[in-house]
Amino acid sequence: MALIVQKYGGSSVADAESIKRVAKRIVETRKAGNEVVVAVSAMGDTTDELLDLAHEVTPLPEPRELDILLTSGERISMALLAMAIGTMGYDARSFTGYQAGMITDNRFGAARIVDVTPSRIREALDEGAIAIVAGFQGFNTETGDTTTLGRGGSDTTAVALAAALGATVCEIYTDVDGIFTSDPRIVPLAKKIDTISSEEMLELAAAGAKVLHIRAVEYARRHGVTLHVRSSFNNSEGTLVVNETAEETAERFQREMQENGTVEEPIISGVATDLSEAKITVVGVPDTLGKAAAIFDTVAKASANVDMIVQNVSAAATGLTDISFTLPKADGQKVLQALRAEQSVIGFQSLQYDDQIGKLALVGAGMRTNTGVSARLFRCLADAGINIGMISTSEIRISVVTRADVLAEAARVVHTAFGLDGSDAAVVYAGTGR
Amino acid sequence: MALIVQKYGGSSVADAESIKRVAKRIVETRKAGNEVVVAVSAMGDTTDELLDLAHEVTPLPEPRELDILLTSGERISMALLAMAIGTMGYDARSFTGYQAGMITDNRFGAARIVDVTPSRIREALDEGAIAIVAGFQGFNTETGDTTTLGRGGSDTTAVALAAALGATVCEIYTDVDGIFTSDPRIVPLAKKIDTISSEEMLELAAAGAKVLHIRAVEYARRHGVTLHVRSSFNNSEGTLVVNETAEETAERFQREMQENGTVEEPIISGVATDLSEAKITVVGVPDTLGKAAAIFDTVAKASANVDMIVQNVSAAATGLTDISFTLPKADGQKVLQALRAEQSVIGFQSLQYDDQIGKLALVGAGMRTNTGVSARLFRCLADAGINIGMISTSEIRISVVTRADVLAEAARVVHTAFGLDGSDAAVVYAGTGR
Repeated sequence: MALIVQKYGGSSVADAESIKRVAKRIVETRKAGNEVVVAVSAMGDTTDELLDLAHEVTPLPEPRELDILLTSGERISMALLAMAIGTMGYDARSFTGYQAGMITDNRFGAARIVDVTPSRIREALDEGAIAIVAGFQGFNTETGDTTTLGRGGSDTTAVALAAALGATVCEIYTDVDGIFTSDPRIVPLAKKIDTISSEEMLELAAAGAKVLHIRAVEYARRHGVTLHVRSSFNNSEGTLVVNETAEETAERFQREMQENGTVEEPIISGVATDLSEAKITVVGVPDTLGKAAAIFDTVAKASANVDMIVQNVSAAATGLTDISFTLPKADGQKVLQALRAEQSVIGFQSLQYDDQIGKLALVGAGMRTNTGVSARLFRCLADAGINIGMISTSEIRISVVTRADVLAEAARVVHTAFGLDGSDAAVVYAGTGR
Repeated sequence: MALIVQKYGGSSVADAESIKRVAKRIVETRKAGNEVVVAVSAMGDTTDELLDLAHEVTPLPEPRELDILLTSGERISMALLAMAIGTMGYDARSFTGYQAGMITDNRFGAARIVDVTPSRIREALDEGAIAIVAGFQGFNTETGDTTTLGRGGSDTTAVALAAALGATVCEIYTDVDGIFTSDPRIVPLAKKIDTISSEEMLELAAAGAKVLHIRAVEYARRHGVTLHVRSSFNNSEGTLVVNETAEETAERFQREMQENGTVEEPIISGVATDLSEAKITVVGVPDTLGKAAAIFDTVAKASANVDMIVQNVSAAATGLTDISFTLPKADGQKVLQALRAEQSVIGFQSLQYDDQIGKLALVGAGMRTNTGVSARLFRCLADAGINIGMISTSEIRISVVTRADVLAEAARVVHTAFGLDGSDAAVVYAGTGR
C-alpha cells in the first residue's frame, strides 16, 4: 500500500464547491488503495484578509499574535475538508500543526521545522482514516506557542510530512497543469515539463517560477522526497520533480534520447521570468579592500535579500568603481535609506534606483556538458534588439537583466531559440495557490 | 492588586474599530492597578458564518471537525485584541483554550469543564502582562482534541477562569446596560437591576433572559464568583450577580429597606419572557402507573429538554388524562416523531402541537416570604383579558403560558402590577453577545 501526501493550495479550496471537488479527489486516491495524508492551505484569500484585519487594528502587529491569527485560516479549511470527506462515507480526521507534530523553532512568521513527530497521523492511517493536516503552521514545544512557516509554508508542510512518513510521492495540487518551460501567460508556446531534477527546479524557483516554493524544493531534495506538481482541476499527469545528482540527470538524458530516438540532449529545462525585482547601483565606490563588504553588510542589516551582483571594472584614472545589485522591489526603499545613512562611512558618490527591470533566467542541467549556451543566448537577444544589463551565472543557470517592457519578448525569443516551443498554446488558469 | 476577569461578546468585537474600543477599556482597567484576564468571543456573526460554511459542505458535520472549525473564530478575535492592546504600549498575550488550561471532557459541541489549569496565564500576569483567552473552547487531554463548550460558552470560560484564578470579580460585557427587570424591547419601562442573587439570576436565565447563560451562572454560584454584567459601550455600573443564600437575600432586603427608607420589601426581581418554546399535548393517556414515565423517557431518548409539564386531572369516567409539556421549538418535530413511534406501546390517543405560545416567568427571592403573589399575578392578567394555559412554580418563580401574540402585553401589565416600572424608557441596543 502506497502512502501519498497531497497538498491543496488556497485556490483549490476557495469555497464549499471546491472543497467538495477536492474531497472527491482525495477519496478517489484512497479508493485506489493508497494511504492518504493531505496538507491544506487556507481558503482562497483568507490569509490576506486576516492580514488586512490585523493592519486595521495596528500598524505593527505583534508577531506571536499575527501567527496565531493566521493559523485560524487553515483550521477552517482542514475541518471543512474533513467534513466533506466524512459525508462521502470515509473516515477523515483533521490535525493542527501541533497535533501533526510539526515542531518548529520560535521564529514567528518564518519558523523553521526542527522535527516532525507525526505519531497521531500514523495512528489515524493505521486505523484506515485519511489525515487532513493544516498547512503553513507549526508549534514550538519550549514556549507552547503556535508558529507559521512563512510564504510557501503549506508546500513545506506537505514535503515535511512526506519525508517523516516515508511517502511514495508528495503531490502538490495547484491551478496549473505542472511546471512549464516558461510562464504560459508570457510565453504562449510554453510546454509542460514531464520530469525535472530538483536542482533545476531549485534554480527555476529561485529565478521566479512561482508554482513551487524554493524552501519546499530544498526540503524535498535534502530528504529525498519525490514531488508531483499537478492540477486539481483535471486528472492529467503533471511534472515530477525527482532527486537526481548531475550524473543521474545525464544518465536520464541518455536513456530518454535512446527511447525517443532523438539525437540531441535537452540543454535547457526552462526560461524563468521575474518582474518583482529592482536594481540599485552604488556609484563611485573607492576601489579599495572591504568597500563591497561594507555595502553588503549594510544591506544585510536592513534584512534584504540580494540576488544578482555586478561590480564594474574600475576606471584606472579615478580608482572608483560602480556596484550594482538586484533585490525585491519591496525592500528597495529601506535599503536605499540604510545605504544613505552609511554614505560618509563607505565613501560612495551617489545611489541610482531602477524598478523598471526584468530578470530572465535560463535553467538546465544540460548546460554542464554543453558549451556555447551563453553565446547562443546573447546572440538571440541581440538579434531581437534586446539589450541586457547585468549577467550572472551558476553551473546550471544563466540570468540576465533586461528592461521590464521587453522581458516578455525576451522570454519568447529565448524559448524559441532553445527549441522549447510546443505545438499548441498552453492552457492557463487564473490565480495561484499558496 | 485586584484580579479582574472580563468577558467581551461577539457584538463588542464585531470589527477593527470595536476591537480598538475594547482594547482601550482593558488598558484602562490595567492602568487602574488591576491584573486583567480577558475572555473573548468570535467577532460578530463569525460563528454563524462558519456554521453556514459547514452546512454548505455537508448536511451532518462530524462533531470533532465542527468544533475545530468553530474555535478558529475566537483565535482570530483574541489575536486581534492582543495586537490592539500591544499597539497601545501594553504587553498582551493571547491564549487558546489549550494554552489557558481549559480541560474538558470529549463531548464535542457541549463539552463540560473538568479542570482549569491556568499556569501560563498566572505566569503572564506575574510578568505584568494582560492575558487574552479564547472563549468557548477547551481541550481534551486524553485525545488531544479541541472542544467547544456550546452556547454561552464564552461566559462559562470567563467564570471558570475567574474561579480558578480567584478573581475579585468577573465582568461580563455586553451590548445592554445590565440585567433588566424585563426585556426593554418588550417592556419599555423595564429598569436595570443593581444587585440580584445568583439564585434569582438562574431562574431568570432559565426562563428566557438571554443576557447571561444559565450554565455560567450555575458555575459562578457553585464556585462563589461574583458577576458584574455591564455594557461595553459606556462606563455606567451594570448589574452585580452576588452569591447569596435565601437568608442572605432576606437580610440584604432588610438592609436596603432601612437605607432607602422604604417600607415594602421588593418581591419580584424580574419578569422574563420567552417565545422560543412550543407545547405538545399527549391526549388520552391511560391514567395508570408509569405512563408519564414512559412518555418522558421517550422524550429524553430524543435528547430534548422539557421545561414545564402539566398533567390534567383525569376524567373518572374514562380513566384517561392529558399530559402537556413545553420544549424548544427546534426539538418539536423530532419529539413528535419519537412519540408517534411509541404510540401503541404507551397507548395514548393522539398528539397536539402548538408553537404559538409564549412563556412569562415572575422571579423573585421575596416570594418566599410573601403570600398572595400568584393571586396578584392571575388577577392582573385576568383584568387585562389575557388567558393563561399552563402554570408551574418553584420557590422563587411562577411561570405561565399565554398565547404568543399577547405575551408582550402580559409582560407589561405584570411589570406594572408588581411595581417594577421605571420612570424612563430603558435604552435598548441592537444585537446580543454570545
